[in-house]
Amino acid sequence: MSTGFFGDIERIPYAGPDSTDPLTFRYYQPDEMVLGKRLEEHLRFAACYWHSFAWPGSDPFGGQTFERPWFGESLDDARLKADVAFEMFTALGVPYFCFHDLDMRPDGNSFAENTRNLQVMTDYLGEKMDASGVKLLWGTANLFSHRRFMSGAATNPDPDVFAYSAATVKTCMDATQKLKGENYVLWGGREGYETLLNTDLKRELDQMGRFLNMVVEYKHKIGYEGAILIEPKPQEPTKHQYDFDVATVYGFLQRFGLENEVKVNIEQGHAILAGHSFEHELALANALGIFGSIDMNRNDYQSGWDTDQFPNNVPEMALAYYQVLQGGGFASGGTNFDSKLRRQSIEADDLLIGHIGGMDCCARGLKAAAAMIEDKALSSPLEERYAGWNEETSARMLDGSMGLEGIEAHVLKNDINPQPRSGRQEKLENIVNRYV
Amino acid sequence: MSTGFFGDIERIPYAGPDSTDPLTFRYYQPDEMVLGKRLEEHLRFAACYWHSFAWPGSDPFGGQTFERPWFGESLDDARLKADVAFEMFTALGVPYFCFHDLDMRPDGNSFAENTRNLQVMTDYLGEKMDASGVKLLWGTANLFSHRRFMSGAATNPDPDVFAYSAATVKTCMDATQKLKGENYVLWGGREGYETLLNTDLKRELDQMGRFLNMVVEYKHKIGYEGAILIEPKPQEPTKHQYDFDVATVYGFLQRFGLENEVKVNIEQGHAILAGHSFEHELALANALGIFGSIDMNRNDYQSGWDTDQFPNNVPEMALAYYQVLQGGGFASGGTNFDSKLRRQSIEADDLLIGHIGGMDCCARGLKAAAAMIEDKALSSPLEERYAGWNEETSARMLDGSMGLEGIEAHVLKNDINPQPRSGRQEKLENIVNRYV
Amino acid sequence: MSTGFFGDIERIPYAGPDSTDPLTFRYYQPDEMVLGKRLEEHLRFAACYWHSFAWPGSDPFGGQTFERPWFGESLDDARLKADVAFEMFTALGVPYFCFHDLDMRPDGNSFAENTRNLQVMTDYLGEKMDASGVKLLWGTANLFSHRRFMSGAATNPDPDVFAYSAATVKTCMDATQKLKGENYVLWGGREGYETLLNTDLKRELDQMGRFLNMVVEYKHKIGYEGAILIEPKPQEPTKHQYDFDVATVYGFLQRFGLENEVKVNIEQGHAILAGHSFEHELALANALGIFGSIDMNRNDYQSGWDTDQFPNNVPEMALAYYQVLQGGGFASGGTNFDSKLRRQSIEADDLLIGHIGGMDCCARGLKAAAAMIEDKALSSPLEERYAGWNEETSARMLDGSMGLEGIEAHVLKNDINPQPRSGRQEKLENIVNRYV
Amino acid sequence: MSTGFFGDIERIPYAGPDSTDPLTFRYYQPDEMVLGKRLEEHLRFAACYWHSFAWPGSDPFGGQTFERPWFGESLDDARLKADVAFEMFTALGVPYFCFHDLDMRPDGNSFAENTRNLQVMTDYLGEKMDASGVKLLWGTANLFSHRRFMSGAATNPDPDVFAYSAATVKTCMDATQKLKGENYVLWGGREGYETLLNTDLKRELDQMGRFLNMVVEYKHKIGYEGAILIEPKPQEPTKHQYDFDVATVYGFLQRFGLENEVKVNIEQGHAILAGHSFEHELALANALGIFGSIDMNRNDYQSGWDTDQFPNNVPEMALAYYQVLQGGGFASGGTNFDSKLRRQSIEADDLLIGHIGGMDCCARGLKAAAAMIEDKALSSPLEERYAGWNEETSARMLDGSMGLEGIEAHVLKNDINPQPRSGRQEKLENIVNRYV
Ligand SMILES: [Co+2]
Ligand SMILES: [Co+2]
Ligand SMILES: [Co+2]
Ligand SMILES: [Co+2]
Ligand SMILES: [Co+2]
Ligand SMILES: [Co+2]
Ligand SMILES: [Co+2]
Ligand SMILES: [Co+2]
Repeated sequence: MSTGFFGDIERIPYAGPDSTDPLTFRYYQPDEMVLGKRLEEHLRFAACYWHSFAWPGSDPFGGQTFERPWFGESLDDARLKADVAFEMFTALGVPYFCFHDLDMRPDGNSFAENTRNLQVMTDYLGEKMDASGVKLLWGTANLFSHRRFMSGAATNPDPDVFAYSAATVKTCMDATQKLKGENYVLWGGREGYETLLNTDLKRELDQMGRFLNMVVEYKHKIGYEGAILIEPKPQEPTKHQYDFDVATVYGFLQRFGLENEVKVNIEQGHAILAGHSFEHELALANALGIFGSIDMNRNDYQSGWDTDQFPNNVPEMALAYYQVLQGGGFASGGTNFDSKLRRQSIEADDLLIGHIGGMDCCARGLKAAAAMIEDKALSSPLEERYAGWNEETSARMLDGSMGLEGIEAHVLKNDINPQPRSGRQEKLENIVNRYV
Repeated sequence: MSTGFFGDIERIPYAGPDSTDPLTFRYYQPDEMVLGKRLEEHLRFAACYWHSFAWPGSDPFGGQTFERPWFGESLDDARLKADVAFEMFTALGVPYFCFHDLDMRPDGNSFAENTRNLQVMTDYLGEKMDASGVKLLWGTANLFSHRRFMSGAATNPDPDVFAYSAATVKTCMDATQKLKGENYVLWGGREGYETLLNTDLKRELDQMGRFLNMVVEYKHKIGYEGAILIEPKPQEPTKHQYDFDVATVYGFLQRFGLENEVKVNIEQGHAILAGHSFEHELALANALGIFGSIDMNRNDYQSGWDTDQFPNNVPEMALAYYQVLQGGGFASGGTNFDSKLRRQSIEADDLLIGHIGGMDCCARGLKAAAAMIEDKALSSPLEERYAGWNEETSARMLDGSMGLEGIEAHVLKNDINPQPRSGRQEKLENIVNRYV
Repeated sequence: MSTGFFGDIERIPYAGPDSTDPLTFRYYQPDEMVLGKRLEEHLRFAACYWHSFAWPGSDPFGGQTFERPWFGESLDDARLKADVAFEMFTALGVPYFCFHDLDMRPDGNSFAENTRNLQVMTDYLGEKMDASGVKLLWGTANLFSHRRFMSGAATNPDPDVFAYSAATVKTCMDATQKLKGENYVLWGGREGYETLLNTDLKRELDQMGRFLNMVVEYKHKIGYEGAILIEPKPQEPTKHQYDFDVATVYGFLQRFGLENEVKVNIEQGHAILAGHSFEHELALANALGIFGSIDMNRNDYQSGWDTDQFPNNVPEMALAYYQVLQGGGFASGGTNFDSKLRRQSIEADDLLIGHIGGMDCCARGLKAAAAMIEDKALSSPLEERYAGWNEETSARMLDGSMGLEGIEAHVLKNDINPQPRSGRQEKLENIVNRYV
Repeated sequence: MSTGFFGDIERIPYAGPDSTDPLTFRYYQPDEMVLGKRLEEHLRFAACYWHSFAWPGSDPFGGQTFERPWFGESLDDARLKADVAFEMFTALGVPYFCFHDLDMRPDGNSFAENTRNLQVMTDYLGEKMDASGVKLLWGTANLFSHRRFMSGAATNPDPDVFAYSAATVKTCMDATQKLKGENYVLWGGREGYETLLNTDLKRELDQMGRFLNMVVEYKHKIGYEGAILIEPKPQEPTKHQYDFDVATVYGFLQRFGLENEVKVNIEQGHAILAGHSFEHELALANALGIFGSIDMNRNDYQSGWDTDQFPNNVPEMALAYYQVLQGGGFASGGTNFDSKLRRQSIEADDLLIGHIGGMDCCARGLKAAAAMIEDKALSSPLEERYAGWNEETSARMLDGSMGLEGIEAHVLKNDINPQPRSGRQEKLENIVNRYV
């Protein structure tokens, strides 16, 4: 009993690199074995609810462009939306999806009504999941769209908003647990400021620290086994958001004793907005032990805001998956498309085509990364570059047995006068281009 | 026995706001009392050695523009440079100066020769300081200009460079201590990477952590009483530097157990390059308890690199000093001009004029900030905005006595439905404009 | 018969620099004489309809924050909106306002209905103008918000949209003429592209050239005496807009023979987004003879999108007005506030306070600029810097009487070996700081 | 009689995509036929003299890293440099090279001495060209590195600098003509300003217009048949350069009557710095009829300055060559690598490896672009998208036979109410990914 929104939709088939049919995969074969694991298990794709089914196509200078039969605020609208969403998930063969409460339930006039709507729709989604086999990668609460959150959720100057937000997160954690979501995500879109003139930065950081601690405490209390993830973003909607980037989140987690409890969900576009490459943020999260999951949607390099586009640059994506694989691959995390169609892409099949392109690029990128790992294409030169540190004196400089004075004596005694060696950047870039 | 470089130079006098003589102060009176303290003690000005006396005026597309009689690599050149530098410090009436080893000593062919040169010039500077009364705000080691550092100092893949760097820092700490420098600064211009392809990020962070721990250990060993400061900068010269911004440095310090040992020297231009306002970085450092000192030189908002210009926008500077004063003002830190003349400003008196303008703007900015503090112009509205947190239930949400479930019950019981209140940004901006 | 929206509102009085009442002017006195002209005539302030009365406070991550009694799509709503708008114009004492058709009329279901609504509201606004004395600085058509314009107006691949847009502009020009608007503005928010993959750049430029020519032809046909202005903006909403900046618009105007027919309306925020300072765009428009009017709203330097904030940095604004005055001041143009409140500024009086602050800063900026002009503070050194060009040989190099060969002979004969002279940037910056 | 700098260097062979030898081409086969033309003739590769042979590896925070036996200012040094350069050109099999005067001659103490050195080295290069078959793509004058140019060349406030620059350009045009260079390029690295405070923008634009007119007059006078090209760049070294981007240069050319005489040399990195994609600048130059040549070196997306790196992202490069081929391919222009090694890449063979990687990526990009053209992969959907304009009424809206009033009547009569159609961006992006 299809809704008919996508016409006579079937599961999108793999048709090989030469296929010119836009409704086929050219690279993504879920069962292909890569580094001893199925591609599907490596990539752990998720499609998101909000951009594809809730966003009307508006931007700061224009209104709705999409005309969807489920736009409205009734429970029937919400159920139709879910029906179409699961038709898309199933057609694409994505094993996971993600949602905010606001995406999937009607918005009510009180916390109690919102909670009731959430529970009704949680049950409905649960049935769809059982029927389709699609699982929940993560759930989250939208604490940024409604005007009550305009000055922050956890960091609001008004304690009532803090309370409302905390209660809402509890209900969303409950829903996520009920649906066996493998992660619970927090993105602090309003946890920041427009101007320091009206902001007590320290106080707001403390509020946010307490809030996150409550989330972790509640997780343990209810025995929720998923991971808690923070999604960093430097700015937009606010001028400055507290979860600026991976390094900032790490410092925050340490400050509030949470560095072993919370990990990060890293989005390519947010990395870019913070002045980093995506692979930097991934490498850093791995180095710090807080890597969780990714949002594999890109920003436009010439736009200064979050464009959340479907990814399409395979060489860049290969470098991202290289970091993911170097860190051991995804545990509870996965590859979420927090991607929206361009607002001019108003056809139903654009939704499919956007995801198909993204999934194919991910497959190409991951396979290229895996091949580089198998060949030790980058790791061999890296090992050689740092080989000097394997010598005994070098190790002693790091293990605490030498201090500045001891090292000075060592330099003087051996008349150390280091000669630089080529960094070989171009050679390594050429090596990568053998794989992509 | 003046060098004559500045002609018949005298101490630059205060001549009041109406003065049109470019060689007078219009706002800076060292002895003016502000918030119970002399302006000189508030601002703690320092001029730097490198930009004004060592930099030849080159940029990536052009060579030397300045013609200075001391350019050369002999000890006599170094002494002449020092003579002129102290003539400038004295004329300006800045109580402090700052240096890198490479600025003030000839560059030798070995570590031993560099150390000897450093010691000779340390003694020479010591005599100049005694004679003039000018003090040392901070010393530092240049671990970025010589080709041996091209792939990093502490974070070099070659342990010999690590050793050379450590030994060099020891000698610079010794020199700083001998000259009673009030701080020792580390700026990691090469502690970063050009490409992740040849970089082991985690290993390099660990090297850097050990290096900084050695610095702190040595400080305690020799009884050095100044502060150890890191100067964050996100990029340039490398694509990515590890000390990206205040938040990143804070996370790094915690990771290596140094958050109570090391503070930050914040530069306006580096804040801008990292995507922050200067006042953000200052407010954050205060909130995290790691505020140390400032480099009060600005970047051009339309240039994507570090322009290190003399500051000239009083309203912005007032907001910066507002944060400094809110945090209690400078302890060991001060207002350093890490500023360089534009390379076209080739006259000797341009050096004086650049500093005079910067100092006058600082004086105006600080006095405006002090007046806002005295009037509680911003702090009263701030207190009122967060007043709800003074109530008992609010406090219980923060002190750990309520969790998500308790708060949910509270929301339901009281049917909490928060109504937003105006953030009053424009009103507060207008208030600031009453002071600047 | 006030609407009561602003309470008991009166004309905002001038109360002098010491006033702490947020509902007074501290610097703006309309009748103050500056350079022989009333300040009001210099500044020619306009408030805009859209941001203050039509925008709901939404952003890409959040919905409506403002609750205004006139939000709705009936003619009664439109009339109430107009009543409140004119109450604000009158209270502020701005001599002008600006509008888009969509701001001031209900949106209908057809071109014919839109035109009827426009005419009804044009008459209503005309009555308000007569009663209040407030005049129209400019009118314009909104060809970017409705989904029909999602792929462009003049540059749409669909000729029907071109036609619809042309017809709409005609009706808006008629309305502007009827209301004696002093300018007609075109901002091409959708005249650009999201991706070159689906864009025929040359064809679209030609469409835009023809469109603008029709506007100019119609202006002459109906004897409209106002100026036609283009407002440049580089991007947002699209990835790339054709009217990127002043230089781009100038090239476009020349290409289509319109450089003597059309001028530019320059917005500070759009200059910034294009990588220029505001004063650059003003100086360039003056140099090219196409300066028209300004939108004096700023962008946040740390945000990569158009924040359209009320201006508040007097030193920067002084440099902008310096360029305006150097070019002879406004002819048909003026100082429009294309400014929106921050979305958290939800109180009615925030609307007044935002404008008051902006107007006061403009007054300070313009008076500082006028004083610099009177004192020849910048023009004297400038004249001296270029004085060499007054000599005869120099003039002959520019007037075409010498070519490369002649000049080579001149260089050889006189052994010309130019010595650089200081650019004196810091000195000039200090001079400016005597005025702001 | 090789210099031995590159060891036993031979012509770099094509060894196919599976080659792992860094000193082989994997994609570039000069004789491969693409769209009926040899790949070599399509790409018209040039290597440049300055970055590879004159730049010492310095950056704003560090000095020389490269140690080259030809560094020095004697004629022997210059000849050794030329010998090594031609060994590299020959090994790579690039058909062209490019130079500035300052790259290839010793710097003298007067214009006369510089001219003599230039002539000596022109003859020497001529011999090398004859012997090797390597040709000159373009010559140019360095009017930015010496301190005499610090305030501009053509736009200097000092007419003597204008004269010196004009004379220098004449000698460089003479040298270029003598060496049968196919283009003469002007890049105005100092034609801009650091601050408007000391700048007469209009006067400087007029100086630059006259200067360029002299260049064109001299070209015709001496019968030079190559193209005159301007290379746009928005900023760096100055805060603002007058040749900001393609659109700006086009407006400038029209203003001075040169739009049919001068074309543009477009660099990827400069496009990025100006806020454009590379393909935008290429498409625009084609649309305006001023496309000349390209500098195929990229900037880092996270760095705010000109990094001039070897290109390595094939999908992006395919889009660039797609525009080049759509415009008919290169006439006098070519693919120049204005690329420099990273300063850590200090080995001799890094020079070869950098170019090999760039050339291989160009070959892949061009072949992908050619295939898209052959398949009409993008042009078919494009034609369909604009098909409505082929109808008669549409054409009449563009040809001047209808004006705003006629179109309004047409809209009313036909009750035109345009319905948007999908822009299909994701579908087109997926199509491109079939080719790269
Ligand atoms: Co995003
Ligand atoms: Co995301
Ligand atoms: Co700096
Ligand atoms: Co600094
Ligand atoms: Co704007
Ligand atoms: Co505007
Ligand atoms: Co470049
Ligand atoms: Co170039």
